[in-house]
Amino acid sequence: MNDNVILGIDIGGTRVKMAIINSNFEILSMGIIPTNIKDSPEKFLKTVVEKASELKNYDKVCEIGVGIPGDVDFKNGILRFSGNLGWKNIPIRDILHKYSKKKVYVDNDGNTASVGAFWLDTKGKANNLVCITLGTGVGGGIIIHKKLYRGASYSAGEMGHITIKHDDKPCNCGNIGCVEVYLGANHLTQYSIEYIKKHKSKIISDLVGKDLSKFTLETLNKAAIKKDKTALEIYDYAGEILGILFANVINMLNPDTIVLCGGLTLSGNFILSPAKKIVLSRAFKIPAKTCKIICSKWSDRLGVIGAAMLTKQETI
Amino acid sequence: MNDNVILGIDIGGTRVKMAIINSNFEILSMGIIPTNIKDSPEKFLKTVVEKASELKNYDKVCEIGVGIPGDVDFKNGILRFSGNLGWKNIPIRDILHKYSKKKVYVDNDGNTASVGAFWLDTKGKANNLVCITLGTGVGGGIIIHKKLYRGASYSAGEMGHITIKHDDKPCNCGNIGCVEVYLGANHLTQYSIEYIKKHKSKIISDLVGKDLSKFTLETLNKAAIKKDKTALEIYDYAGEILGILFANVINMLNPDTIVLCGGLTLSGNFILSPAKKIVLSRAFKIPAKTCKIICSKWSDRLGVIGAAMLTKQETI
Repeated sequence: MNDNVILGIDIGGTRVKMAIINSNFEILSMGIIPTNIKDSPEKFLKTVVEKASELKNYDKVCEIGVGIPGDVDFKNGILRFSGNLGWKNIPIRDILHKYSKKKVYVDNDGNTASVGAFWLDTKGKANNLVCITLGTGVGGGIIIHKKLYRGASYSAGEMGHITIKHDDKPCNCGNIGCVEVYLGANHLTQYSIEYIKKHKSKIISDLVGKDLSKFTLETLNKAAIKKDKTALEIYDYAGEILGILFANVINMLNPDTIVLCGGLTLSGNFILSPAKKIVLSRAFKIPAKTCKIICSKWSDRLGVIGAAMLTKQETI
Repeated sequence: MNDNVILGIDIGGTRVKMAIINSNFEILSMGIIPTNIKDSPEKFLKTVVEKASELKNYDKVCEIGVGIPGDVDFKNGILRFSGNLGWKNIPIRDILHKYSKKKVYVDNDGNTASVGAFWLDTKGKANNLVCITLGTGVGGGIIIHKKLYRGASYSAGEMGHITIKHDDKPCNCGNIGCVEVYLGANHLTQYSIEYIKKHKSKIISDLVGKDLSKFTLETLNKAAIKKDKTALEIYDYAGEILGILFANVINMLNPDTIVLCGGLTLSGNFILSPAKKIVLSRAFKIPAKTCKIICSKWSDRLGVIGAAMLTKQETI
């Protein structure tokens, strides 16, 4: 059964998660190291392989699946561009193969998350699934007819870069009014701080020791749990943006399932409830009712298991 | 070869086109009748069959494909809702079968247009194609891996109801700031008239005999041909909206081809050139360069041939 043991590597902006899993998606061993982008990509990836090789059952691994933020040429395993990592045209697959001697698959982390969501959250039952990842960036992936849809140049699923306010804030991607400009973690944190300055909250003030520079989205979640009005209003705002994105996805793709994952989903229904209300008012009724919208229950391991399952995922 | 002779019926808001075609997409005979929605749907559809049965080669037809504006349950051949026709839950397939005794397929006219664009404009060569129809309404259809993608409840491809200005004008669909509110023929005509009132144009004034109530989108096209500045500015505006829609489609679906069809495409590059510029500034570079954006060369028969080809089109 050696051929069913896979190494998944989830490369994020701040840390790299690694997990060796079996065909039941059970994690046999796991490791985390910081993402050191001060090193050259090759040196960094060599370190990743060295750390992975220390994991239990690494000797049984035949294949490696990698998720990485940015624009990935899946066919050739090349990271064409990553704003997050500051890298351009890095042959991730070949470098990892050089040091591991194993077969390597590399894809955008939104795609690997959607593979993870498909297998973990829907047990492979969804037919047409859209995964939306809410982290520093906003990304996603599309499963069509149980297969990963990559599009003509492997770039499909950029859910964070759908324009919803065409003449509002500029986005790093060059566009204006992208979803990411509102829901990306840094943007939402900044919006929250400005909002809190205008709508004072004793609960939030206490949580950050009266120092708003210490405010994070975790603070927001804690305040909402305490039913803080200001925090709930911020979630209503974020939920509205998310709901517009959902409605666009539903009207365009009519998926049976939308899975939300990433840091912001810790807030669960605080953001999902207002978003679902917006869907009912903005999307076409039948596809809106047909679509099940959930937060992933596997957010902490979706990326790394999805990366591993990439090695087995059929493509359309 | 009788089994390759198909009747296509393209039901529009004002007229019904019918064509009998062979497997080379050649039209053997064709007819047009007005869409009489004063009649009951059954009476109207009975008339359609009667008129079709007068067409040459009708006796050889085994299958009928129908495109109709609205939300269609493809599996059961039911028009669930059509704002354009004012109909709700009409069993189109069963009614047409009752009077024709032939096998009938019914789908949304955006889907049938995308089937037509796939076969006529790309000769079946596109892998992933998005068709956008610009008429009274704005619709569309999605071809993925050469097959028609309908989604979980057969509702996919509602390109006109993607939000791009989330807090602007309300749309008939219940949403706010949909593409259709700007590019639907009536909306764009209204916008143009308001714009012309503010930015006088002698050319347009002459074309409408100084009576702006006579202004249509054909007037706009004629004025643009004469290089009228005001007309070209209106196309720049429409092109910007269209470009934002293209960019959203490209970032989400990364298609190899976008085909534009419907009345507004008569204006060709007047609207397409500014739209393509917007794509380059708003969409991700690689998928933007990968995507070929064209106006259909078959707009007058795309709907009716697409409807006929629906009978042969594989679904994903």
